[in-house]
Amino acid sequence: MSCTFKTTRRVEFHETDMAGIVHFANFYKYMEQAEHEYFRSLGLTIVDKQADGSILGWPRVSAQCSFESPAYYGDLLEIRLNIERIGVKSLTIEYDLWRDKTKIARGRMKTVCCQFTLGSPMQSIAIPEWMLLKFEASMDQTE
Amino acid sequence: MSCTFKTTRRVEFHETDMAGIVHFANFYKYMEQAEHEYFRSLGLTIVDKQADGSILGWPRVSAQCSFESPAYYGDLLEIRLNIERIGVKSLTIEYDLWRDKTKIARGRMKTVCCQFTLGSPMQSIAIPEWMLLKFEASMDQTE
Amino acid sequence: MSCTFKTTRRVEFHETDMAGIVHFANFYKYMEQAEHEYFRSLGLTIVDKQADGSILGWPRVSAQCSFESPAYYGDLLEIRLNIERIGVKSLTIEYDLWRDKTKIARGRMKTVCCQFTLGSPMQSIAIPEWMLLKFEASMDQTE
Amino acid sequence: MSCTFKTTRRVEFHETDMAGIVHFANFYKYMEQAEHEYFRSLGLTIVDKQADGSILGWPRVSAQCSFESPAYYGDLLEIRLNIERIGVKSLTIEYDLWRDKTKIARGRMKTVCCQFTLGSPMQSIAIPEWMLLKFEASMDQTE
Repeated sequence: MSCTFKTTRRVEFHETDMAGIVHFANFYKYMEQAEHEYFRSLGLTIVDKQADGSILGWPRVSAQCSFESPAYYGDLLEIRLNIERIGVKSLTIEYDLWRDKTKIARGRMKTVCCQFTLGSPMQSIAIPEWMLLKFEASMDQTE
Repeated sequence: MSCTFKTTRRVEFHETDMAGIVHFANFYKYMEQAEHEYFRSLGLTIVDKQADGSILGWPRVSAQCSFESPAYYGDLLEIRLNIERIGVKSLTIEYDLWRDKTKIARGRMKTVCCQFTLGSPMQSIAIPEWMLLKFEASMDQTE
Repeated sequence: MSCTFKTTRRVEFHETDMAGIVHFANFYKYMEQAEHEYFRSLGLTIVDKQADGSILGWPRVSAQCSFESPAYYGDLLEIRLNIERIGVKSLTIEYDLWRDKTKIARGRMKTVCCQFTLGSPMQSIAIPEWMLLKFEASMDQTE
Repeated sequence: MSCTFKTTRRVEFHETDMAGIVHFANFYKYMEQAEHEYFRSLGLTIVDKQADGSILGWPRVSAQCSFESPAYYGDLLEIRLNIERIGVKSLTIEYDLWRDKTKIARGRMKTVCCQFTLGSPMQSIAIPEWMLLKFEASMDQTE
Protein backbone atom coordinates (compact mmCIF):
# COMPACT_ATOMS: atom_id res chain seq x y z
CA MET A 1 0.00 0.00 0.00
CA SER A 2 1.46 3.34 -1.03
CA CYS A 3 2.10 6.17 1.38
CA THR A 4 3.97 9.47 1.44
CA PHE A 5 5.61 8.80 4.78
CA LYS A 6 5.53 6.16 7.46
CA THR A 7 6.74 5.77 11.02
CA THR A 8 6.26 3.41 13.93
CA ARG A 9 5.23 3.79 17.52
CA ARG A 10 5.01 1.41 20.47
CA VAL A 11 1.86 1.59 22.56
CA GLU A 12 2.64 2.75 26.10
CA PHE A 13 1.01 1.53 29.29
CA HIS A 14 -0.51 4.89 30.23
CA GLU A 15 -2.27 4.97 26.86
CA THR A 16 -4.43 1.98 27.76
CA ASP A 17 -7.68 2.22 29.70
CA MET A 18 -9.57 -0.12 31.99
CA ALA A 19 -11.02 -1.93 28.96
CA GLY A 20 -7.47 -3.16 28.39
CA ILE A 21 -7.08 -1.36 25.05
CA VAL A 22 -5.65 1.92 23.82
CA HIS A 23 -7.97 4.78 24.75
CA PHE A 24 -9.28 6.28 21.51
CA ALA A 25 -8.14 9.85 22.24
CA ASN A 26 -4.55 8.64 21.95
CA PHE A 27 -4.96 7.79 18.27
CA TYR A 28 -5.12 11.52 17.57
CA LYS A 29 -1.75 11.91 19.29
CA TYR A 30 -0.38 9.06 17.20
CA MET A 31 -1.54 10.78 14.01
CA GLU A 32 -0.03 14.04 15.18
CA GLN A 33 3.29 12.36 15.91
CA ALA A 34 3.37 10.97 12.35
CA GLU A 35 2.49 14.39 10.94
CA HIS A 36 5.29 16.05 12.91
CA GLU A 37 7.84 13.42 11.90
CA TYR A 38 6.78 13.90 8.28
CA PHE A 39 7.38 17.64 8.61
CA ARG A 40 10.74 16.95 10.24
CA SER A 41 11.67 14.58 7.40
CA LEU A 42 11.19 17.53 5.01
CA GLY A 43 13.31 19.85 7.11
CA LEU A 44 10.18 21.63 8.36
CA THR A 45 8.80 22.15 11.83
CA ILE A 46 5.26 22.49 13.02
CA VAL A 47 6.30 25.45 15.17
CA ASP A 48 8.43 27.71 13.02
CA LYS A 49 9.83 30.89 14.54
CA GLN A 50 10.06 33.58 11.86
CA ALA A 51 12.63 36.37 11.58
CA ASP A 52 10.03 38.91 12.76
CA GLY A 53 9.35 36.96 15.97
CA SER A 54 6.01 35.60 14.81
CA ILE A 55 5.43 31.86 14.65
CA LEU A 56 4.12 29.79 11.75
CA GLY A 57 1.98 26.97 13.07
CA TRP A 58 -0.62 24.51 11.89
CA PRO A 59 -3.76 24.48 14.05
CA ARG A 60 -6.36 21.88 13.22
CA VAL A 61 -9.64 22.53 11.48
CA SER A 62 -10.96 19.03 11.94
CA ALA A 63 -9.84 15.54 12.89
CA GLN A 64 -11.64 12.26 12.55
CA CYS A 65 -10.80 8.65 13.10
CA SER A 66 -12.54 5.31 12.71
CA PHE A 67 -11.45 2.51 14.98
CA GLU A 68 -11.37 -0.86 13.30
CA SER A 69 -9.54 -3.11 15.71
CA PRO A 70 -8.26 -2.54 19.25
CA ALA A 71 -4.58 -1.87 19.96
CA TYR A 72 -2.87 -3.20 23.07
CA TYR A 73 -0.01 -2.34 25.41
CA GLY A 74 3.33 -3.05 23.76
CA ASP A 75 1.95 -3.20 20.21
CA LEU A 76 4.28 -1.80 17.60
CA LEU A 77 2.04 0.26 15.34
CA GLU A 78 2.92 1.44 11.87
CA ILE A 79 1.43 4.80 10.92
CA ARG A 80 1.17 5.49 7.19
CA LEU A 81 0.55 9.03 6.06
CA ASN A 82 -0.87 10.19 2.75
CA ILE A 83 -1.37 13.77 1.64
CA GLU A 84 -4.96 13.87 0.48
CA ARG A 85 -5.15 17.51 -0.54
CA ILE A 86 -2.96 20.60 -0.55
CA GLY A 87 -5.13 23.72 -0.48
CA VAL A 88 -4.03 27.34 -0.65
CA LYS A 89 -3.94 27.59 3.13
CA SER A 90 -4.59 24.05 4.31
CA LEU A 91 -3.31 20.48 4.30
CA THR A 92 -5.54 17.42 4.49
CA ILE A 93 -3.70 14.27 5.46
CA GLU A 94 -4.90 10.69 5.85
CA TYR A 95 -3.44 8.25 8.33
CA ASP A 96 -3.64 4.48 8.44
CA LEU A 97 -2.57 2.63 11.55
CA TRP A 98 -1.57 -1.02 11.31
CA ARG A 99 -0.23 -3.75 13.58
CA ASP A 100 1.31 -6.16 11.12
CA LYS A 101 -1.58 -7.20 8.85
CA THR A 102 -4.30 -5.88 11.18
CA LYS A 103 -5.81 -2.49 10.36
CA ILE A 104 -6.22 -0.64 13.65
CA ALA A 105 -7.59 2.72 12.60
CA ARG A 106 -7.94 5.20 9.76
CA GLY A 107 -8.00 8.93 10.37
CA ARG A 108 -7.88 12.25 8.61
CA MET A 109 -6.85 15.67 9.83
CA LYS A 110 -7.14 19.06 8.16
CA THR A 111 -4.75 21.75 9.33
CA VAL A 112 -4.39 25.40 8.35
CA CYS A 113 -1.19 27.37 8.01
CA CYS A 114 -1.39 30.21 10.54
CA GLN A 115 0.73 33.05 11.76
CA PHE A 116 0.84 33.63 15.53
CA THR A 117 1.96 37.13 16.50
CA LEU A 118 2.16 38.12 20.16
CA GLY A 119 -0.89 40.11 21.17
CA SER A 120 -2.88 39.40 17.99
CA PRO A 121 -5.31 36.63 17.15
CA MET A 122 -3.78 33.89 14.99
CA GLN A 123 -4.32 34.47 11.28
CA SER A 124 -4.54 31.94 8.48
CA ILE A 125 -2.14 32.58 5.60
CA ALA A 126 -1.30 31.02 2.24
CA ILE A 127 1.18 28.16 2.62
CA PRO A 128 4.58 29.66 1.68
CA GLU A 129 5.79 28.63 -1.79
CA TRP A 130 8.98 27.00 -0.51
CA MET A 131 6.91 24.76 1.81
CA LEU A 132 4.53 23.83 -1.00
CA LEU A 133 7.45 22.65 -3.08
CA LYS A 134 8.58 20.35 -0.29
CA PHE A 135 5.12 18.87 0.21
CA GLU A 136 4.73 18.29 -3.52
CA ALA A 137 8.17 16.76 -3.87
CA SER A 138 7.38 14.30 -1.08
CA MET A 139 4.19 13.24 -2.89
CA ASP A 140 6.17 12.44 -6.01
CA GLN A 141 8.27 10.09 -3.95
CA THR A 142 5.23 8.23 -2.68
CA GLU A 143 6.05 4.55 -2.93
CA MET B 1 -30.55 25.57 21.12
CA SER B 2 -32.07 22.26 22.12
CA CYS B 3 -30.06 19.42 23.57
CA THR B 4 -30.68 16.13 25.32
CA PHE B 5 -28.14 16.77 28.04
CA LYS B 6 -25.59 19.38 28.95
CA THR B 7 -22.71 19.75 31.35
CA THR B 8 -19.80 22.09 31.97
CA ARG B 9 -16.09 21.67 32.30
CA ARG B 10 -13.26 24.04 33.16
CA VAL B 11 -10.16 23.86 30.96
CA GLU B 12 -7.15 22.66 32.94
CA PHE B 13 -3.57 23.86 32.58
CA HIS B 14 -2.17 20.50 31.45
CA GLU B 15 -4.69 20.46 28.60
CA THR B 16 -3.07 23.45 26.94
CA ASP B 17 -0.10 23.21 24.60
CA MET B 18 2.74 25.57 23.66
CA ALA B 19 0.43 27.39 21.22
CA GLY B 20 -1.37 28.61 24.35
CA ILE B 21 -4.63 26.83 23.51
CA VAL B 22 -6.31 23.54 24.39
CA HIS B 23 -4.62 20.69 22.53
CA PHE B 24 -7.20 19.24 20.14
CA ALA B 25 -6.94 15.65 21.43
CA ASN B 26 -8.48 16.84 24.70
CA PHE B 27 -11.78 17.72 23.01
CA TYR B 28 -12.38 14.00 22.59
CA LYS B 29 -11.98 13.57 26.34
CA TYR B 30 -14.41 16.44 26.90
CA MET B 31 -16.98 14.75 24.66
CA GLU B 32 -16.44 11.47 26.47
CA GLN B 33 -16.93 13.13 29.83
CA ALA B 34 -20.26 14.56 28.65
CA GLU B 35 -21.30 11.15 27.31
CA HIS B 36 -20.47 9.47 30.60
CA GLU B 37 -22.31 12.08 32.64
CA TYR B 38 -25.31 11.65 30.36
CA PHE B 39 -25.23 7.90 31.01
CA ARG B 40 -24.90 8.57 34.72
CA SER B 41 -27.87 10.96 34.60
CA LEU B 42 -29.95 8.04 33.26
CA GLY B 43 -28.76 5.70 36.00
CA LEU B 44 -26.49 3.92 33.51
CA THR B 45 -22.75 3.37 33.47
CA ILE B 46 -20.38 3.04 30.57
CA VAL B 47 -18.73 0.07 32.29
CA ASP B 48 -21.50 -2.18 33.51
CA LYS B 49 -20.59 -5.37 35.33
CA GLN B 50 -23.19 -8.05 34.60
CA ALA B 51 -24.37 -10.83 36.88
CA ASP B 52 -22.34 -13.37 34.85
CA GLY B 53 -19.09 -11.44 35.37
CA SER B 54 -18.99 -10.07 31.84
CA ILE B 55 -18.94 -6.33 31.26
CA LEU B 56 -21.18 -4.25 29.02
CA GLY B 57 -19.18 -1.43 27.51
CA TRP B 58 -19.34 1.06 24.66
CA PRO B 59 -16.20 1.07 22.52
CA ARG B 60 -16.05 3.68 19.80
CA VAL B 61 -16.50 3.05 16.10
CA SER B 62 -15.58 6.55 15.07
CA ALA B 63 -15.08 10.03 16.46
CA GLN B 64 -14.73 13.33 14.69
CA CYS B 65 -14.51 16.93 15.69
CA SER B 66 -14.23 20.28 13.96
CA PHE B 67 -12.49 23.06 15.82
CA GLU B 68 -14.08 26.44 15.31
CA SER B 69 -12.47 28.68 17.89
CA PRO B 70 -9.61 28.06 20.34
CA ALA B 71 -10.27 27.37 24.04
CA TYR B 72 -7.97 28.68 26.74
CA TYR B 73 -6.82 27.77 30.25
CA GLY B 74 -9.53 28.48 32.79
CA ASP B 75 -12.36 28.67 30.23
CA LEU B 76 -15.64 27.28 31.47
CA LEU B 77 -16.96 25.25 28.56
CA GLU B 78 -20.52 24.08 28.13
CA ILE B 79 -20.90 20.76 26.38
CA ARG B 80 -24.30 20.08 24.79
CA LEU B 81 -25.14 16.56 23.77
CA ASN B 82 -27.73 15.41 21.25
CA ILE B 83 -28.62 11.85 20.38
CA GLU B 84 -28.41 11.77 16.61
CA ARG B 85 -29.30 8.14 16.04
CA ILE B 86 -30.12 5.05 18.07
CA GLY B 87 -29.30 1.94 16.06
CA VAL B 88 -29.85 -1.68 17.01
CA LYS B 89 -26.36 -1.96 18.44
CA SER B 90 -25.01 1.57 18.26
CA LEU B 91 -25.46 5.13 19.47
CA THR B 92 -24.46 8.20 17.48
CA ILE B 93 -24.21 11.33 19.55
CA GLU B 94 -23.39 14.91 18.59
CA TYR B 95 -21.59 17.33 20.87
CA ASP B 96 -21.40 21.11 20.75
CA LEU B 97 -18.87 22.93 22.88
CA TRP B 98 -19.43 26.57 23.75
CA ARG B 99 -17.77 29.28 25.83
CA ASP B 100 -20.61 31.71 26.41
CA LYS B 101 -21.69 32.78 22.89
CA THR B 102 -18.55 31.44 21.19
CA LYS B 103 -18.80 28.07 19.46
CA ILE B 104 -15.59 26.21 20.23
CA ALA B 105 -16.09 22.85 18.56
CA ARG B 106 -18.61 20.39 17.20
CA GLY B 107 -18.05 16.66 17.33
CA ARG B 108 -19.77 13.35 16.80
CA MET B 109 -19.01 9.92 18.18
CA LYS B 110 -20.47 6.55 17.28
CA THR B 111 -20.25 3.84 19.92
CA VAL B 112 -21.30 0.20 19.89
CA CYS B 113 -22.78 -1.77 22.73
CA CYS B 114 -20.35 -4.63 23.44
CA GLN B 115 -19.96 -7.49 25.86
CA PHE B 116 -16.50 -8.09 27.29
CA THR B 117 -15.97 -11.60 28.65
CA LEU B 118 -12.64 -12.61 30.13
CA GLY B 119 -10.61 -14.60 27.64
CA SER B 120 -12.87 -13.87 24.64
CA PRO B 121 -12.81 -11.08 22.09
CA MET B 122 -15.35 -8.34 22.77
CA GLN B 123 -18.63 -8.89 20.95
CA SER B 124 -21.15 -6.34 19.76
CA ILE B 125 -24.71 -6.96 20.98
CA ALA B 126 -28.14 -5.39 20.58
CA ILE B 127 -28.67 -2.55 23.04
CA PRO B 128 -30.77 -4.04 25.87
CA GLU B 129 -34.42 -2.98 25.77
CA TRP B 130 -34.35 -1.34 29.21
CA MET B 131 -31.47 0.86 28.11
CA LEU B 132 -33.21 1.82 24.89
CA LEU B 133 -36.20 3.00 26.88
CA LYS B 134 -33.99 5.28 28.94
CA PHE B 135 -32.27 6.77 25.90
CA GLU B 136 -35.62 7.37 24.21
CA ALA B 137 -37.17 8.89 27.31
CA SER B 138 -34.26 11.34 27.57
CA MET B 139 -34.81 12.41 23.96
CA ASP B 140 -38.43 13.22 24.69
CA GLN B 141 -37.24 15.56 27.39
CA THR B 142 -34.97 17.42 24.99
CA GLU B 143 -35.46 21.11 25.68
CA MET C 1 -8.51 16.65 59.49
CA SER C 2 -7.60 20.28 58.91
CA CYS C 3 -6.79 21.70 55.51
CA THR C 4 -6.38 25.11 53.91
CA PHE C 5 -8.53 24.29 50.91
CA LYS C 6 -10.39 21.33 49.52
CA THR C 7 -12.06 20.36 46.30
CA THR C 8 -13.46 17.26 44.63
CA ARG C 9 -12.90 15.53 41.35
CA ARG C 10 -14.52 12.56 39.66
CA VAL C 11 -12.18 10.00 38.09
CA GLU C 12 -12.61 9.89 34.31
CA PHE C 13 -12.46 6.82 32.11
CA HIS C 14 -9.39 7.93 30.14
CA GLU C 15 -7.48 8.29 33.42
CA THR C 16 -7.63 4.55 34.07
CA ASP C 17 -5.17 2.04 32.65
CA MET C 18 -5.34 -1.63 31.76
CA ALA C 19 -4.81 -2.58 35.42
CA GLY C 20 -8.30 -1.13 35.94
CA ILE C 21 -7.10 1.68 38.20
CA VAL C 22 -6.16 5.36 37.84
CA HIS C 23 -2.76 5.64 36.18
CA PHE C 24 -0.41 7.20 38.73
CA ALA C 25 0.69 10.11 36.50
CA ASN C 26 -2.84 11.47 36.76
CA PHE C 27 -2.52 12.08 40.48
CA TYR C 28 -0.11 14.89 39.68
CA LYS C 29 -2.80 16.48 37.52
CA TYR C 30 -5.30 16.09 40.34
CA MET C 31 -2.93 17.88 42.72
CA GLU C 32 -2.37 20.60 40.15
CA GLN C 33 -6.11 21.08 39.72
CA ALA C 34 -6.50 21.53 43.48
CA GLU C 35 -3.61 24.00 43.55
CA HIS C 36 -5.14 26.03 40.72
CA GLU C 37 -8.58 26.08 42.32
CA TYR C 38 -6.97 27.20 45.56
CA PHE C 39 -5.30 30.07 43.72
CA ARG C 40 -8.61 30.90 42.04
CA SER C 41 -10.36 30.89 45.45
CA LEU C 42 -7.93 33.63 46.53
CA GLY C 43 -8.56 35.70 43.41
CA LEU C 44 -5.19 34.63 42.00
CA THR C 45 -4.27 32.84 38.81
CA ILE C 46 -1.38 30.54 38.08
CA VAL C 47 -0.76 32.40 34.81
CA ASP C 48 -0.85 36.09 35.58
CA LYS C 49 -0.31 38.57 32.76
CA GLN C 50 1.42 41.67 34.12
CA ALA C 51 1.03 45.27 32.92
CA ASP C 52 4.44 45.07 31.20
CA GLY C 53 3.43 42.05 29.13
CA SER C 54 5.45 39.57 31.17
CA ILE C 55 3.75 36.64 32.88
CA LEU C 56 3.98 35.54 36.50
CA GLY C 57 3.86 31.77 36.70
CA TRP C 58 4.68 28.96 39.09
CA PRO C 59 6.87 26.25 37.56
CA ARG C 60 7.55 23.22 39.71
CA VAL C 61 10.79 22.44 41.47
CA SER C 62 9.72 19.01 42.61
CA ALA C 63 6.67 16.81 42.99
CA GLN C 64 6.22 13.56 44.82
CA CYS C 65 3.36 11.29 45.64
CA SER C 66 2.83 8.06 47.54
CA PHE C 67 0.00 5.84 46.44
CA GLU C 68 -1.79 4.15 49.29
CA SER C 69 -4.90 2.68 47.73
CA PRO C 70 -6.06 2.45 44.10
CA ALA C 71 -8.70 4.80 42.70
CA TYR C 72 -11.28 3.63 40.17
CA TYR C 73 -13.36 5.00 37.32
CA GLY C 74 -16.22 7.10 38.64
CA ASP C 75 -14.74 7.59 42.11
CA LEU C 76 -15.43 10.98 43.61
CA LEU C 77 -12.14 12.01 45.17
CA GLU C 78 -11.67 14.73 47.73
CA ILE C 79 -8.39 16.61 47.49
CA ARG C 80 -7.26 18.41 50.64
CA LEU C 81 -4.53 20.98 50.35
CA ASN C 82 -2.26 22.27 53.09
CA ILE C 83 0.37 24.96 52.77
CA GLU C 84 3.47 23.39 54.26
CA ARG C 85 5.90 26.25 53.77
CA ILE C 86 5.94 29.73 52.26
CA GLY C 87 9.49 30.64 51.26
CA VAL C 88 10.75 33.91 49.83
CA LYS C 89 10.31 32.66 46.27
CA SER C 90 8.61 29.30 46.70
CA LEU C 91 5.50 27.53 47.94
CA THR C 92 5.46 23.98 49.27
CA ILE C 93 2.02 22.44 49.40
CA GLU C 94 0.83 19.04 50.61
CA TYR C 95 -2.12 17.20 49.14
CA ASP C 96 -4.18 14.37 50.55
CA LEU C 97 -6.55 12.48 48.30
CA TRP C 98 -9.44 10.59 49.83
CA ARG C 99 -12.41 8.55 48.65
CA ASP C 100 -14.74 8.69 51.62
CA LYS C 101 -12.73 7.15 54.49
CA THR C 102 -10.10 5.59 52.22
CA LYS C 103 -6.80 7.41 51.84
CA ILE C 104 -5.83 7.18 48.19
CA ALA C 105 -2.63 9.18 47.98
CA ARG C 106 -0.51 11.83 49.63
CA GLY C 107 1.64 14.21 47.62
CA ARG C 108 3.73 17.33 47.90
CA MET C 109 4.74 19.88 45.29
CA LYS C 110 7.20 22.75 45.52
CA THR C 111 6.71 25.60 43.07
CA VAL C 112 8.68 28.77 42.47
CA CYS C 113 7.32 32.17 41.57
CA CYS C 114 8.78 33.08 38.18
CA GLN C 115 8.58 35.87 35.66
CA PHE C 116 8.32 34.87 32.01
CA THR C 117 9.35 37.63 29.59
CA LEU C 118 9.27 37.01 25.85
CA GLY C 119 12.74 36.27 24.54
CA SER C 120 14.35 35.82 27.99
CA PRO C 121 14.80 32.75 30.16
CA MET C 122 12.26 32.55 32.99
CA GLN C 123 13.52 34.10 36.22
CA SER C 124 12.60 33.28 39.79
CA ILE C 125 11.44 36.27 41.83
CA ALA C 126 10.31 36.98 45.39
CA ILE C 127 6.62 36.25 45.84
CA PRO C 128 4.91 39.68 45.65
CA GLU C 129 3.81 41.03 49.02
CA TRP C 130 0.12 41.22 48.08
CA MET C 131 0.16 37.53 47.15
CA LEU C 132 1.89 36.56 50.38
CA LEU C 133 -0.85 38.26 52.34
CA LYS C 134 -3.47 36.20 50.57
CA PHE C 135 -1.65 32.91 51.15
CA GLU C 136 -1.15 33.75 54.82
CA ALA C 137 -4.75 34.82 55.29
CA SER C 138 -5.93 31.50 53.84
CA MET C 139 -3.76 29.62 56.33
CA ASP C 140 -5.36 31.44 59.21
CA GLN C 141 -8.70 30.20 57.98
CA THR C 142 -7.51 26.59 57.98
CA GLU C 143 -10.30 24.58 59.55
CA MET D 1 27.97 8.52 34.34
CA SER D 2 27.08 4.91 34.96
CA CYS D 3 23.62 3.51 34.50
CA THR D 4 21.95 0.12 34.29
CA PHE D 5 19.92 0.98 31.21
CA LYS D 6 19.30 3.97 29.01
CA THR D 7 16.89 4.97 26.29
CA THR D 8 15.87 8.10 24.41
CA ARG D 9 12.60 9.84 23.77
CA ARG D 10 11.61 12.83 21.67
CA VAL D 11 9.32 15.38 23.32
CA GLU D 12 5.95 15.53 21.57
CA PHE D 13 3.86 18.62 20.95
CA HIS D 14 0.91 17.52 23.11
CA GLU D 15 3.28 17.12 26.07
CA THR D 16 3.97 20.86 26.17
CA ASP D 17 1.77 23.36 27.99
CA MET D 18 1.02 27.05 27.54
CA ALA D 19 4.26 27.95 29.34
CA GLY D 20 5.98 26.53 26.26
CA ILE D 21 7.66 23.69 28.17
CA VAL D 22 6.96 20.03 28.89
CA HIS D 23 4.19 19.72 31.48
CA PHE D 24 5.71 18.13 34.57
CA ALA D 25 3.24 15.23 34.77
CA ASN D 26 4.73 13.89 31.55
CA PHE D 27 8.08 13.25 33.18
CA TYR D 28 6.46 10.42 35.12
CA LYS D 29 5.39 8.88 31.83
CA TYR D 30 8.93 9.25 30.51
CA MET D 31 10.29 7.44 33.56
CA GLU D 32 7.69 4.72 33.14
CA GLN D 33 8.62 4.27 29.49
CA ALA D 34 12.28 3.79 30.47
CA GLU D 35 11.29 1.31 33.17
CA HIS D 36 9.17 -0.69 30.71
CA GLU D 37 11.90 -0.72 28.08
CA TYR D 38 14.36 -1.89 30.73
CA PHE D 39 12.01 -4.76 31.61
CA ARG D 40 11.64 -5.56 27.91
CA SER D 41 15.44 -5.56 27.50
CA LEU D 42 15.55 -8.32 30.14
CA GLY D 43 12.85 -10.35 28.42
CA LEU D 44 10.34 -9.30 31.09
CA THR D 45 7.04 -7.49 30.81
CA ILE D 46 5.35 -5.19 33.25
CA VAL D 47 2.05 -7.01 32.65
CA ASP D 48 2.79 -10.71 32.79
CA LYS D 49 -0.06 -13.15 32.29
CA GLN D 50 0.56 -16.27 34.36
CA ALA D 51 -0.44 -19.84 33.55
CA ASP D 52 -3.25 -19.64 36.14
CA GLY D 53 -4.80 -16.58 34.46
CA SER D 54 -3.60 -14.15 37.09
CA ILE D 55 -1.39 -11.24 36.14
CA LEU D 56 1.92 -10.19 37.65
CA GLY D 57 2.18 -6.42 37.64
CA TRP D 58 4.15 -3.65 39.29
CA PRO D 59 1.93 -0.95 40.80
CA ARG D 60 3.71 2.06 42.22
CA VAL D 61 4.20 2.80 45.90
CA SER D 62 5.67 6.24 45.32
CA ALA D 63 7.12 8.43 42.62
CA GLN D 64 9.02 11.67 42.88
CA CYS D 65 10.81 13.95 40.53
CA SER D 66 12.79 17.17 40.74
CA PHE D 67 12.79 19.42 37.72
CA GLU D 68 16.09 21.10 37.06
CA SER D 69 15.76 22.60 33.61
CA PRO D 70 12.80 22.87 31.24
CA ALA D 71 12.41 20.54 28.25
CA TYR D 72 10.98 21.75 24.95
CA TYR D 73 9.05 20.40 21.97
CA GLY D 74 11.29 18.32 19.75
CA ASP D 75 14.00 17.79 22.37
CA LEU D 76 15.64 14.39 22.24
CA LEU D 77 15.89 13.32 25.88
CA GLU D 78 18.12 10.59 27.20
CA ILE D 79 16.71 8.70 30.18
CA ARG D 80 19.24 6.86 32.34
CA LEU D 81 17.98 4.28 34.78
CA ASN D 82 19.73 2.94 37.86
CA ILE D 83 18.45 0.25 40.18
CA GLU D 84 18.75 1.80 43.61
CA ARG D 85 17.42 -1.08 45.68
CA ILE D 86 15.97 -4.54 45.15
CA GLY D 87 13.78 -5.47 48.10
CA VAL D 88 11.96 -8.71 48.73
CA LYS D 89 8.81 -7.44 47.08
CA SER D 90 9.84 -4.08 45.67
CA LEU D 91 12.12 -2.30 43.23
CA THR D 92 13.39 1.24 43.69
CA ILE D 93 14.74 2.80 40.53
CA GLU D 94 16.33 6.18 39.89
CA TYR D 95 15.99 8.05 36.62
CA ASP D 96 18.09 10.88 35.21
CA LEU D 97 16.84 12.82 32.21
CA TRP D 98 19.30 14.71 30.06
CA ARG D 99 19.27 16.78 26.88
CA ASP D 100 22.89 16.61 25.77
CA LYS D 101 24.85 18.13 28.69
CA THR D 102 21.80 19.69 30.34
CA LYS D 103 20.25 17.84 33.28
CA ILE D 104 16.50 18.09 32.88
CA ALA D 105 15.15 16.08 35.79
CA ARG D 106 15.91 13.39 38.33
CA GLY D 107 13.26 11.04 39.61
CA ARG D 108 12.76 7.90 41.63
CA MET D 109 9.95 5.37 41.63
CA LYS D 110 9.27 2.49 43.98
CA THR D 111 7.14 -0.33 42.62
CA VAL D 112 5.85 -3.51 44.22
CA CYS D 113 5.48 -6.90 42.60
CA CYS D 114 1.78 -7.78 42.76
CA GLN D 115 -0.52 -10.53 41.64
CA PHE D 116 -3.82 -9.48 40.11
CA THR D 117 -6.48 -12.21 40.18
CA LEU D 118 -9.93 -11.55 38.79
CA GLY D 119 -12.37 -10.80 41.56
CA SER D 120 -9.74 -10.40 44.30
CA PRO D 121 -7.83 -7.38 45.52
CA MET D 122 -4.29 -7.21 44.17
CA GLN D 123 -1.74 -8.81 46.47
CA SER D 124 1.93 -8.01 46.90
CA ILE D 125 4.24 -11.01 46.53
CA ALA D 126 7.96 -11.74 46.73
CA ILE D 127 9.71 -11.01 43.44
CA PRO D 128 10.13 -14.42 41.75
CA GLU D 129 13.68 -15.78 41.90
CA TRP D 130 14.10 -15.95 38.12
CA MET D 131 13.24 -12.23 37.86
CA LEU D 132 15.64 -11.32 40.66
CA LEU D 133 18.45 -13.02 38.77
CA LYS D 134 17.73 -10.92 35.71
CA PHE D 135 17.65 -7.66 37.65
CA GLU D 136 20.90 -8.53 39.41
CA ALA D 137 22.62 -9.59 36.20
CA SER D 138 21.70 -6.27 34.62
CA MET D 139 23.25 -4.40 37.55
CA ASP D 140 26.51 -6.24 37.05
CA GLN D 141 26.57 -4.95 33.51
CA THR D 142 26.18 -1.36 34.66
CA GLU D 143 28.64 0.71 32.64
